[in-house]
Amino acid sequence: MNMKAPRGTVDLLPENTRKWQFAEKKIKDICDRYNFNEIRTPVFEHTELFQRGVGDSTDIVQKEMYTFEDRGGRSLTLRPEGTASVARAYVENKLFGNPIQPTKLYYFAPMFRYERPQKGRMRQLNQFGVEVLGSADPAVDAEVIDLAMTCYKEVGLTSLKLVINSLGDSESRDNHRRALVEHFSPVKEELCSDCQIRLKQNPLRILDCKKDREHPAMKNAPSILDYLNDESKNYFEQVKSYLTMMGIEYEVDKNLVRGLDYYNHTAFEIMSEAQGFGAITTLAGGGRYNGLVEELGGPDTPGIGFGMGFERLLMALEAENKQVAIEEQLDCYFVAMGDQAEKESVKILHELRAVGIQADKDYLGRKMKAQFKSADRFNSSYVLVLGDEELEKQMINVKNLETGDQIEVKLEEVVSYMKETLQGGKGNE
Amino acid sequence: MNMKAPRGTVDLLPENTRKWQFAEKKIKDICDRYNFNEIRTPVFEHTELFQRGVGDSTDIVQKEMYTFEDRGGRSLTLRPEGTASVARAYVENKLFGNPIQPTKLYYFAPMFRYERPQKGRMRQLNQFGVEVLGSADPAVDAEVIDLAMTCYKEVGLTSLKLVINSLGDSESRDNHRRALVEHFSPVKEELCSDCQIRLKQNPLRILDCKKDREHPAMKNAPSILDYLNDESKNYFEQVKSYLTMMGIEYEVDKNLVRGLDYYNHTAFEIMSEAQGFGAITTLAGGGRYNGLVEELGGPDTPGIGFGMGFERLLMALEAENKQVAIEEQLDCYFVAMGDQAEKESVKILHELRAVGIQADKDYLGRKMKAQFKSADRFNSSYVLVLGDEELEKQMINVKNLETGDQIEVKLEEVVSYMKETLQGGKGNE
Repeated sequence: MNMKAPRGTVDLLPENTRKWQFAEKKIKDICDRYNFNEIRTPVFEHTELFQRGVGDSTDIVQKEMYTFEDRGGRSLTLRPEGTASVARAYVENKLFGNPIQPTKLYYFAPMFRYERPQKGRMRQLNQFGVEVLGSADPAVDAEVIDLAMTCYKEVGLTSLKLVINSLGDSESRDNHRRALVEHFSPVKEELCSDCQIRLKQNPLRILDCKKDREHPAMKNAPSILDYLNDESKNYFEQVKSYLTMMGIEYEVDKNLVRGLDYYNHTAFEIMSEAQGFGAITTLAGGGRYNGLVEELGGPDTPGIGFGMGFERLLMALEAENKQVAIEEQLDCYFVAMGDQAEKESVKILHELRAVGIQADKDYLGRKMKAQFKSADRFNSSYVLVLGDEELEKQMINVKNLETGDQIEVKLEEVVSYMKETLQGGKGNE
Repeated sequence: MNMKAPRGTVDLLPENTRKWQFAEKKIKDICDRYNFNEIRTPVFEHTELFQRGVGDSTDIVQKEMYTFEDRGGRSLTLRPEGTASVARAYVENKLFGNPIQPTKLYYFAPMFRYERPQKGRMRQLNQFGVEVLGSADPAVDAEVIDLAMTCYKEVGLTSLKLVINSLGDSESRDNHRRALVEHFSPVKEELCSDCQIRLKQNPLRILDCKKDREHPAMKNAPSILDYLNDESKNYFEQVKSYLTMMGIEYEVDKNLVRGLDYYNHTAFEIMSEAQGFGAITTLAGGGRYNGLVEELGGPDTPGIGFGMGFERLLMALEAENKQVAIEEQLDCYFVAMGDQAEKESVKILHELRAVGIQADKDYLGRKMKAQFKSADRFNSSYVLVLGDEELEKQMINVKNLETGDQIEVKLEEVVSYMKETLQGGKGNE
C-alpha cells in the first residue's frame, strides 16, 4: 500500500502555507500596481498545444511531460509551463479584440515536469508568471523585468543577479543558425546524441546543453550578438537603456538562450546569489515570443512574459536568512468547564466570529490547565473562562494573557465587550 | 489542430478572476476567524489512495477518475475530491503528533472528474473545503456546518437550504444495511444494473440512485434514522441542538447519504434555492468520516469536513442577482507624447509603482486622444501628461479625471506629489 505523496511532490503544511500566502499577497499587490490582471487556465491542455507552443524539439516536450489519454481518447498533458496556455486562452477567448491593449496578465499555477527530483526541482512545481500580449515596445520588456525584480525585492531578497540577452528577430536568428551549423558540424561526432539532433533541428539549443558545456567548440561558438541586424540591435539597446533608467543592474550573457523554442529578442533570467542556495540558481526566466500567438492560430501578436518558481523563491528567502515571521495568532480562546458551559461556548463562539473576532475553543474535553496551554500555543490575546460558577451568575471571566488582567463581564455582553476591547487595541482595524 | 481548452474546462478571464478573488478573500478571512489553517496537497496522488479513501464502489472511482501511468509506471490519478488527500497528508506528515489538536485545515484546490459537462458540472472544478481531524465532539460538526453557511452568507447569498442526516456509527449502519438488503432483494431484478451491484457492495447508495428514484420500493425503504443506536441518536441530537443554538435552520432528509463510502454520523448538504439556478442545486456537501484515517494507515482518528464548488458559488451569486461589483481601477495613467517623454515616463512609472501607486501607460504609440480613452477605460483617477513642451520646462501636467482640475507639477516632484495627493484622498490607506 503506497500512501505517500507521489515522488517529486510535497504537501505544504500550515507553517509553509503561511509563508506562501505572505509572498503571494505581496506579489498580487505588485501586480495591481503594475496593472496586471489574473488569468486562470486549466491544469491540463490538449497535448498538441505544447508540441506547437513550447516546441517539439525541447526537452520539456520530448522527455518531461505528463501526457495521458482521457476516457474519451483525447491526448491531454498536464501544463509544463504557463505561456502556451495563456497564449491559447488569448486566442480562444479573442482577447485581441478587447479595446484595452496590451493585454497584461498574471497567473499563479502548478506546473508538472517529469524530471529527476532534487532540491529546487520538483515534479509538481508552482509558478507565478506574467504575460503581456499585443505590444512590441521595448519599454514593455523593461516593465516585465522590473516587475519580476520588484517581486523578489519586496518579498525580501537582496542577493540577486539579472542576466539578459537578445535572441534577435528571425533574420538575425537565421544568420546565427547558419553560423552555428557551420561551426559545430566539423565536431558533430564529438557532441552528445541530443546535440547531434539539435544541430539539425535547433542548433541554438546546443549552447544550452549541460553535457557538452565543456566541449572546446563551445568556447568560440558564434554569438547571437554578433549576428543581430540593425533593428534587433536597436531593440536590445533600448531595453538596456530602460533598465538603466530604472536603476536595475544587469549582466549580458550571450549564451543565455532559454529552453523553449518560441523566444526571440529579449531573453532573461534572474538568479539567486545567496550562499548555500544550491546548484540550481535560476529563480525566474522569461523572454519575448513574437511568433507564438500566430503559431497557435491567432493574429500576428507580439508577446513577452516570465515564470518564477515559488518553491525556489521560498528557498532563496531561507538561504538569505530572511525569516518570514508569521505566527499563529488568535484574538480569544474559550475555556469552558462543564456540560452547560460547553454548550454555551458554542453559541458565544459563533457570535464572536460573526462580528469578526478570531476565536476558538477546545474540542477534546481537556482539563482547564490543558485548555490554557492551547490558548498559549495559539498566541491567543484573551482567554474567556466559563465554568459552572460563572454560569450561575451569568458572568464570564475575561483574561488578558499579555497583562494577566482579569475582569468579569456579563455573559450577554461578552461579544460586544470583546469587540470593543479588540478594536481599541487594534486601532479600528 | 485543436487549440481549444479541453472539453469540460474553461479559462477564467480577469472579469471573472476578480469575482473569484473577492470570494476567496472573504472565505480566507472567515477561515482565520474560525482558526483554520491552509494545506496544499499535490494535484495528483497514487490511484490507490482514492480506491481506498473514496471507495472502490463509488461512481467517482469506478467511472470518473483521470487515471494514468507516469513515465516511471506509477498509476496516478488527478484528485477527484479533497478529503482523501488531506487525510493522507495528515498520516504521512504525522500531524496527529502535533500538540495542537484537533487539526483544522482548509484548502482551495482544483478537482477533476470525467463527467458529461453541463451547467454547474465541469471536468475541472474548483473547490474550497475544510477538514477537522482529531475530535469526535458534535460541536465540531456544528462548527464545520456553521463555517460553510457563514461563507455563503458573507459572500452574499440568501436563498440557501441546509439539509442534514445521520448515517450512524458502524453498528447502526450494519443494522440498516441488513434491512436494506432485505427490503430491496425481492425487487432486485427491477433495479438498474448499478443498483443490483450496490445491493451487494453498498446497499446504502441505492437510496442515492438517480435512475431508480421513482421505483415504488424507494418510498418505504428502511430509513437509517430508524436504525440508529442510542449513541448515534444522541450524537445526532447534539449536532442539531448546537445548530439551533447558533440560529442555523436545517431540514432533516433521511435519504441524504452522500456519494462517498467513508461517511458516518453527520452528513449534510447546502443547496441554493435561488430561482433559475439550474437542475443541480447542491452547493456544498460534507460529513463525518471517523474510519478514514485508520483506513489510510494512520491511528484511529475521527474526522469531518466538506467541499464546496466555487463555480456553483459564483453561479448562485448570479442567480440571486448579487452583483459583485469589482471594477478596473487605476490611480494614474501616464500620457506621454514624443520619444523623450516616452523614455521619461518609463522611469517615473517605475518610481510611482515603487511607492505603492497603481500606474500604467500606453505601450502602443497611440495618439493623445486614444491614450486619454485608455485612462477612462481603466477608471484612472489621474492622468499625467508629459509632452515636449512640458519636458522643456521640466514640468508635468496632472489632471484629476473626476473633477477635471489640472495642475502643473515639477517633474522631479511628481512622484511625491502623487503620493501625497492619493494618500490624502484615500485616508492613509
